[in-house]
Amino acid sequence: MKELREKILKEGKVCPNNIVKVDSFLNHQVDVSFLKKIGAEFYSRFKNEKVDKILTIESSGIAIACFVAECFNCRLVFAKKGKSLNQSKDFYEAKVFSYTKKEEYDIRVSKEFLNESDNILLIDDFLANGAALNGLAKIVEDAKANLVGCGIVIEKGFQSGGKELRDKGIHLESLAIIDNADETKQTIEFRN
Amino acid sequence: MKELREKILKEGKVCPNNIVKVDSFLNHQVDVSFLKKIGAEFYSRFKNEKVDKILTIESSGIAIACFVAECFNCRLVFAKKGKSLNQSKDFYEAKVFSYTKKEEYDIRVSKEFLNESDNILLIDDFLANGAALNGLAKIVEDAKANLVGCGIVIEKGFQSGGKELRDKGIHLESLAIIDNADETKQTIEFRN
Repeated sequence: MKELREKILKEGKVCPNNIVKVDSFLNHQVDVSFLKKIGAEFYSRFKNEKVDKILTIESSGIAIACFVAECFNCRLVFAKKGKSLNQSKDFYEAKVFSYTKKEEYDIRVSKEFLNESDNILLIDDFLANGAALNGLAKIVEDAKANLVGCGIVIEKGFQSGGKELRDKGIHLESLAIIDNADETKQTIEFRN
Repeated sequence: MKELREKILKEGKVCPNNIVKVDSFLNHQVDVSFLKKIGAEFYSRFKNEKVDKILTIESSGIAIACFVAECFNCRLVFAKKGKSLNQSKDFYEAKVFSYTKKEEYDIRVSKEFLNESDNILLIDDFLANGAALNGLAKIVEDAKANLVGCGIVIEKGFQSGGKELRDKGIHLESLAIIDNADETKQTIEFRN
């Protein structure tokens, strides 16, 4: 998505550990008019699929998921982060290791909001090692729902998450794929 | 807002400690078409004010704030929760005591996303003791921005937060005010 790549180049900052900060429009301040375009782009890429529900993770996935769900005219569910509830019967749970924060956390979704008949589209802001997406995919599997695909705003192509998901045959759409991010030079290179 | 009161009566559950769970449409699963109506209702109540930016707190305020920001055609900023960064020069910070979780946490907003010239509308899902809203209001004050008012989806009228904010002269709009929530009988009474 050309407009997204331009926005990342204009507003993004490369931080240590290859972290690309885009908190001026995506995950702290939210540029709502731009996110509506992001939502429309995901819709155009998945509109031939049946999508009953959007699933994301708090917090930075929520705003994006809102505008995707608006396009599909469906509900969204956001997985909650927190300590495990010790295999609660009321929740689907998964463990996620955060690359940014170097710590493991649990995500959970109330069983009443995922049904066997649901066709689920996963949405998130970043894909690096795929830990968060794999956690969400496990929850969809545990719910015996159907995983339609994954929509990611920014994929870090130099990490393995995207390749692994594609190798599994999952329909993954990343609106921008960063192949190189140099903190010293503050340069970002995208995949064509 | 009549439709909201009806939705709370239909889908809400009263839990211990007067907690009213509305996670089927507001803060776990999100009913996007309903939240668009919520956004339009806040717009109608604040449309005579100049609003440059919506400020909320992760996570459950974000989806609501998205649809308010959409109506005002402005950006939103969500305060992040977490441990204090020890009076970082880059953030405005405030301490918030969570009534639901019985613990204190810090909220922070990057200084670059709040300006002196900004007219800020605060949006959140619940108002009980007002701890979260007071934290956000402090951040607006620290930024020397102008607090336009506060829009709350559900106010617990039997707690003091709403009264205190109104007594301070803050323009507070709560779309539903619950005066009584009985866990045993599973009844909810609204203020007229």
